[in-house]
This record gives sequence, C-alpha cells and structure tokens, in this order.
Amino acid sequence: MDELKPMDAEQLREYGHQMVDFIADYYKNIESFPVRSQVQPGYLRELLPDSAPVRPESLQDVLDDIQSKILPGVTHWQSPEFFAYFPSNSSVAGFLGEMLSAGINMVGFSWITSPAATELEMIVLDWLAKALKLPDQFLSTGQGGGVIQGTASEAVLVVLLAARDQVLRRVGKDATGRLVVYCSDQTHSALQKACKIAGIYPENFRLLKTDSSTDYALSPESLSEAISRDIASGLIPFFFCATVGTTSSTAVDPLTELGKISNSNGLWFHIDAAYAGSACICPEFRHYIHGVEGANSFNMNAHKWFLTNFDCSALWVKDRSALVQSLSTNPEFLKNKASQDNKVVDYKDWQIPLGRRFSYVARRSLKLWMVLRLYGLENLQAYIRNHIELARKFEELVNLDSRFEVAAPRRFSLVCFRLVSARNDVEHANQLNRELLEAVNSTGNLFISHTVLSDKYVLRFAVGAPLTEERHVLEAWKTLQEKAALLLSELKESDANKVGWNLECEYLQYQVRGEVSVSNIHVMCRDERQCK
Amino acid sequence: MDELKPMDAEQLREYGHQMVDFIADYYKNIESFPVRSQVQPGYLRELLPDSAPVRPESLQDVLDDIQSKILPGVTHWQSPEFFAYFPSNSSVAGFLGEMLSAGINMVGFSWITSPAATELEMIVLDWLAKALKLPDQFLSTGQGGGVIQGTASEAVLVVLLAARDQVLRRVGKDATGRLVVYCSDQTHSALQKACKIAGIYPENFRLLKTDSSTDYALSPESLSEAISRDIASGLIPFFFCATVGTTSSTAVDPLTELGKISNSNGLWFHIDAAYAGSACICPEFRHYIHGVEGANSFNMNAHKWFLTNFDCSALWVKDRSALVQSLSTNPEFLKNKASQDNKVVDYKDWQIPLGRRFSYVARRSLKLWMVLRLYGLENLQAYIRNHIELARKFEELVNLDSRFEVAAPRRFSLVCFRLVSARNDVEHANQLNRELLEAVNSTGNLFISHTVLSDKYVLRFAVGAPLTEERHVLEAWKTLQEKAALLLSELKESDANKVGWNLECEYLQYQVRGEVSVSNIHVMCRDERQCK
Repeated sequence: MDELKPMDAEQLREYGHQMVDFIADYYKNIESFPVRSQVQPGYLRELLPDSAPVRPESLQDVLDDIQSKILPGVTHWQSPEFFAYFPSNSSVAGFLGEMLSAGINMVGFSWITSPAATELEMIVLDWLAKALKLPDQFLSTGQGGGVIQGTASEAVLVVLLAARDQVLRRVGKDATGRLVVYCSDQTHSALQKACKIAGIYPENFRLLKTDSSTDYALSPESLSEAISRDIASGLIPFFFCATVGTTSSTAVDPLTELGKISNSNGLWFHIDAAYAGSACICPEFRHYIHGVEGANSFNMNAHKWFLTNFDCSALWVKDRSALVQSLSTNPEFLKNKASQDNKVVDYKDWQIPLGRRFSYVARRSLKLWMVLRLYGLENLQAYIRNHIELARKFEELVNLDSRFEVAAPRRFSLVCFRLVSARNDVEHANQLNRELLEAVNSTGNLFISHTVLSDKYVLRFAVGAPLTEERHVLEAWKTLQEKAALLLSELKESDANKVGWNLECEYLQYQVRGEVSVSNIHVMCRDERQCK
Repeated sequence: MDELKPMDAEQLREYGHQMVDFIADYYKNIESFPVRSQVQPGYLRELLPDSAPVRPESLQDVLDDIQSKILPGVTHWQSPEFFAYFPSNSSVAGFLGEMLSAGINMVGFSWITSPAATELEMIVLDWLAKALKLPDQFLSTGQGGGVIQGTASEAVLVVLLAARDQVLRRVGKDATGRLVVYCSDQTHSALQKACKIAGIYPENFRLLKTDSSTDYALSPESLSEAISRDIASGLIPFFFCATVGTTSSTAVDPLTELGKISNSNGLWFHIDAAYAGSACICPEFRHYIHGVEGANSFNMNAHKWFLTNFDCSALWVKDRSALVQSLSTNPEFLKNKASQDNKVVDYKDWQIPLGRRFSYVARRSLKLWMVLRLYGLENLQAYIRNHIELARKFEELVNLDSRFEVAAPRRFSLVCFRLVSARNDVEHANQLNRELLEAVNSTGNLFISHTVLSDKYVLRFAVGAPLTEERHVLEAWKTLQEKAALLLSELKESDANKVGWNLECEYLQYQVRGEVSVSNIHVMCRDERQCK
C-alpha cells in the first residue's frame, strides 16, 4: 500500500476479496486449531517489533503474521468444539451485517446524523420484541421501546442509573447511601460492577442466597423478607434484578411472584435474560419469561445465541423517559430541528457512550436486521432447538456413565456436571474436577469451563457454537471420558501406594485451592512422594 | 439462504465477495448521494414490514432494500463533502481490520479467553504511545499502559471512576457530595454525563468560563482560584480535565501550567485529545501536548482522524492499578491460572462493559494494528498534514471574502467562520447564519455544522473525510458563497421594502430562536409581508 489511498473503491475491492478468502479459509480449517489457545503469557511481544513501522507493509505480510503469530494466540470461540462459555455467535448474516456497518461507517448519535440508523434500530427491536411476545408496552409505538447496547453489563448499568435518578429525584440526592439493590447470588457480576459505578454502597447490595432446593432460583420469600427488613431499618429498596438463565447453571427466577413483590414495593424490576432470552422465540420455551409483564426492563443478548456477531445486546424499557432523564445532555452544537420538535428519538440519550460525540447506534441494528431477514424466524427457532437437543444428548451420556453426575437440572443448552469422587471428601472431588478441566482443555480438542455451586466445583458444557454438530459433542465426551479414566487410574495407583492425598503438605493446600497446578507442586514440594 | 448453514465457509465466501463489491460500489458512487440525509422523521417505518419474516429472504432482496430504503436515510460520513462534525474515518485498512475481527469474532475479556487479543492491544498501544512521544510511564512495560475504549466518553468515565474511588478510599465513602470536578466550558459534554453517572453533585461540577481573550482556552488562574475557593468551603477537588482541540473551536488548554496546579492540589489530571491527538504524531504539532508528562491519563480517538474505523478510542494511564481497583470483579467461573498468577492483564478490569461476560478487548486492536502496518507512520503523518493544509486553504478563502469572517483561530483542520451582518445586531447575524447552514445542508452537496462561541452562532467546517481533496473544499466554498449571496440579496430586497425584521410578529420570534424554519413562517404567519 505504498501510495496512501485511504478509501479507494478499487483498493477496497481488491483487498476486500482477499480478506474474504482469508476468513472463509479460516472457517474451513477451524477444526485444525487447538480450541483454547496454548500459548504462554507474553508470547506475542517476543514476536512483534517494538514500534510501529514508518513505511507501509504489504497486506500479504500482515496476513502471514496473522496466520503465524496471531491465530496461535486466539481461543477459537466459533470452533465447533468450543463448549466453555455461553456462545458468542458469528454467522454469515451477522458477518455481512458487520461488513456493511464497517463499510458505510455511519455514526448515528442523533437522528439527523443518520436517520436510517435510528429508525432501523427502533423497527428491528420492535420485530424482536414481537418474536419474543413481549407486552406491547415495550414497543416503540407507545411510551417504551428498545435500544441496542453493547453488552448486558451496559444494559443493566443504564437501567440502574435511570432507576437511581428516578428515586433520588423523589427522596433527595443525599440519600444515595440508603439505596438498596437486590438480586440472587447467581446474578451476573455485571450488576455488582454497575452498583460500584453508580455509587451504591457495597453494604446495600443484597446478594440473596440460593441453593439446590430451588435449583439456584431466587425464592420470593427471600426477596420479600429482605425488602421488609431494609425498609424497617430506614433504607430505600429501589432496584431488583431477576435472571432467566443464570451463567452458572441457567437457573430461572420465578418472575411472576418476584415481580409482584418488586412492584408492590415500588422497585425497578429488571430481567436479565442475556443468554436464555433467545430461546424464548420458540413457543415451547416462551414460558420461561412468563411474568415479563411486571418488569420495567428486559434484556437479551443477540450476540450470544442469536447468530448476530458481537456486540448486540437488546434492551427494552416500558418508560423510555426515565432513561432519557438520566442520560441526556444537550450541548449547543448538537441541536437540530428534528430533535427539538420531539419528532424523533436520539439514541445518545439512551446509553452510556457519549455526551454527544459518537455512539454505536444503528451500526448494530443492521446486522440484527440481516440475521432476521436472511435466516427468518423459523430457521432461528430450529437453530436454538438443535443446540438444546445436543445438550440433552450430552446430559444423557453423562447420566449413563456412573463415574459422572449431572450437577444441576439442564434447561437450555448448558449441562453442569462433574466427576464423582469415590471418597466422601468435597475438596478431593473438587480437585479431581479441576484436574479434569485442565487435562481436557490442554488437549486443544475442546474447551469447557467451570463454576462453583454450593461449594462444589462443577464443569460447564455449553453447546452453542454455530458449527457444532452431534459428532463434535460425541468427540468431546470421548475426550472427557478418556481423561477421566486416566485421572482415576492414577488416583487408584496412588491409593494403592497408600500415600494418597496428604493434606498436611503445605504445597498441596495451594493446589487444592487451585492456586498452582499439579505439575508445579512436584517442583515445590520437598518430598515428592508425599504429594503423589 | 433456505437451508440454515450459519457459518458455512463456502457460503461466507460467496456472499462475502458479493458484499465486498456492494461496499466498493458504494464508495465508487458516494458523491452521488446527498451528504446529509434528506428524509423525514418516520420515513422508514412506512417502508418496512411490521414484523420479522418467518421464512428466509435472499441476500439480493436485502441488498436491494439497503440501496432503495436504507441508503436514502444515511448521512454519509465518508463522503468527501462531509465537513460537519469531526471525522469518523473509515479506511481500507480499518475496514479489513473490522472484517477480520468480525470474522474471527473472538472475545477477549480475560487473557485466557484470547491471549492474542489482550497482548496485541498492549503492544499496539505502546506503538501508538511511542508515535505520540508519550512519557514512558504511559507504556505497559511499567506501572501504566494503554487500553482501547469505545469512545472518549467511556474513557473519561473510567478515569473519573478510578479517581473518585481513589479519593473516597482516603476520605470515606460518605464524602461523595463534597467531590468537585473541574473543566472549561468548552469541554466535551461527555464529562458532564460521566459526572451524572458517577453521582457527582451537579453543583460540584465546575464549568470554568473561557472567552475569546484566550481563544477559548482555560486560564490557569481561573482553575487555581476555583480550587482554592472550594477548598476554603470544605469541598474536595479531585478531578480536572483539560482538552487539546475542543469540539467547538479546537482550543488547546495550556497543559503545563494547568497540570502543575492540578498536581499540587492532588487532583487526577486527565487530557482529552480525542480529535487533535492524531495530529501529534507529526513533529510540528507535537507541541500541542507538551505538558502531558503531568497528566494521570491521556486519551485520543483513533476512530476520528486516524483512519481506524469506529470505534477505537485509545486511553493511557500512568497507574493502571487505580483502574483495576475501581472496575474489577472476580467471579468464580472466570478464575484461571494465568490471571491468578498475575502474569497477565485482564482488560475486563480496565473498562465499563462487563463484570465478566464480554468485552470489546482485542477486537479493536486488530484494526489499529492493520492501520499502522498497512499505512505506516509516514503516510499517516502525510494524511493529517493534507487535511490541515486543506483547512488552511478554506480559511484563506473565507478571509478573502469580506462578507464572511473567521470566528476563532484555526489550529488543526477545523475552520470556525460566519457570515457577517451589516446591521449591528447579534440576533440578526445569528439568524442569518442559521439560515445559511440550513440552506447549504439542504442542497445535499455538503454537510457542515454549527456551534455557539460567546453567544455568536458560528459555522463549523471540519476537514477530515478520507476522500476529501482540494476540489471538494472549493466546491463546498462555492455552494456556501452562492447560498450566502442569495440570502443577502433577499435581505436587501426586504430592507428596500422597509418591512424588515419585525420582531413584533409572534411567529417571527420562533424563527429568530431557531425553532421553525423560514419556509414554515410564511405558512404560520397571518400577514406574510410582515415577516419578509
């Protein structure tokens, strides 16, 4: 690119075609990469120069570097063997939408800066609201409406701020220290971060306890008691967040009862359905959001399980004026006729980014629109159902193998499971599963993650990558079985040697707490046999 | 797309090539579109169906709709005749980077979720810091480092939160109501929004006045006096934001003196160089950020004037632990060996989005890396210099035409100018320029914007689109001259009729306040001649 032609149509065409082929080839070969990157921290600094080049380099040089230096450090989220976190779907339609957004590179902070951007966002979110059968109050044709945020974290932050400012307008701004937020201990930590940002006192953030008796859903009594206690102490309950499909185990909070309690106490009721919301476009799963009628706001991530490339988090509110009151700014040079006549929506007032400068508005609606049109709702439903069916099959496999157990009920496409320890020792079982996780992820054949439920270390197998088929699930299960068998036989051998897990060894305690790996233990420990 | 193959390599290849051609053709024909969209509010809802399709549609159908329904509602930010806001650059390299990010669609919230993502971001921001000759303390090799945020608004919010929490740890969290923030009245409104979010009391947000005597830069005395006054009243000054290249007129605050005052009073000193920062890679413009040594944080938007597609806002801090203390969360299922050994940076703790879920990390570094490599620093400097030279030429044209005046000194690529009124009447002159703005923007030939400086309505001509050449500037000036001539001759005629601007007419008052346009006045007014 010797001569600088920063936006030359023919250069874009030539290099664009080259890049399309590069990316298509990546997907063709995606199964050849280790799913979880196997590099060591700091690997890339060794490979790249210390400063930016003064003279231009060729596209081929850059593509070669991506192949040889960048891709080895990539964890392949789109790999069919990626089962670690909830998915972050890519699709052809989503990709085309991203290309188009990047191509036009329009910026839509106010309606006037790109009318199509703002209007398409309102229309597409109305489409999606209808597909989810959300109550009409969430449609943009009334007092409510939808807005696309970057992530569920931003979504919960903007509604928390709207709720905070609404209550402070009533009780006076010096009352921040008395505001209380409620959620279950399974709620996404994004809410805790939002509370930190909003200045809610840490001691007024109520993580209400759940356990296996309710399958990790929040019990209405627990919410109701906590609110009463706080009111009695002179505090001001103002925000409650329920979850449909928690990250750890896809628990579903009972929305209808919780909503009643929340409403009767004047709290803002937010529903986080970031992952599981997508499933609710299928009639047979729609019941999971029964009770959404009582909510002030509802959120689902189209970039998770809805084939829309990252990022695209859909947030609906019943009362859009609450958002605008918290988040609007109106400097002189953004004033324009359309906005001042109140004929249009300025999405800058619905989100965190910018006073006015720039926003993501509209860039994201294009890709969601393309996903809905190029696939259609029927195909999207089939896509969701297929993943849930694959997860059901994996659950069946776990149930058939007595060495394993399912650790929480499966509802959507996540299976929580674990290797059972023959010894009646929680810590030993946890360590066993920690080792199994590391053993399977180190193969590069698949990538799974973990969580902790009632002090038990639990493995998470989340189906959701766009290329995953039954054979990938079966292969993953095979690797898991093989590694489990190896671990258990090593254990048996060490039991036979009567050395066993000696918890007296100080280094071993680090290991049990997950702070060092087995391989390091042997280096640290003075008596290797003691640790075997 | 009848059969759902959400990420089929060959389908991606076929449709990807089709989309590349669509986008290349868009750039080929970009000059044929009206720069500012000319549609009316609500236009798109008339054109699109009420709900999402159940069955898939073809890519050709969608592309046809983009051409016929979406593009008319787009304001063309990449048009060579776009002179309205600071640029939001697109480039071939930036576009390729966006394609690649969307293609791999990796998510890098923690190091382990994509090592290349995090490491590339650190390396590329070190490259850019060196190109800007930032002090070593801002490099990731020490206690500081850079992170890519979405926008300058997010950048100022994260440092404000870090500063707030740092001071509250010292003085106790009940002191929020006494915290004071300082900036000039030319500072981006994003800071005000950040203060609202962070719970800073509105009465403790000090917008210090500037005027033409300092070319709208903040005077050190004014900062110093304000701080002393607040300390005397028992308040706690804690955050100061200076700007290099203000939005209204590209004023540059005197960093060295302001930094000394800020430092000696223990304030967090942030520099917002969102637009003008890019120019500082040229040695001859580097002096504008002299004094950055004294800052705690520094921000520039690569997505503005640095050929990196939206969004990509580079933020550097000297003390990264302050950010992490404010923004980290560490739920169980994100724990991993690399993070716990403190061998790696987890960018989730440097930004707003996510507790843990998802972040933008790394997606953005790829495109910045591609811009730096495919263009090289020399070309990027030439690109910046060319825009500044074009703005200088425009300024020259304005100076040569006695009907116009330059309203503030030009430093970078923005010219603030206005039509001069023969009458000695500020409101009349303002109205004249308001009409001129609307007249030129309605032609669709160019798009400019406005601001208000010392109560004067001023037109902004910002050079910065990647395709802008000298001929576009000359054509824009021609349209401006023509429309000005027309307006002035209409005015002369009405003066001759001795009717003039009758401020007694109630409708005309709306017009003077900019609330209705001239064409509507005639419809509303009962006596048309009175308003002429």
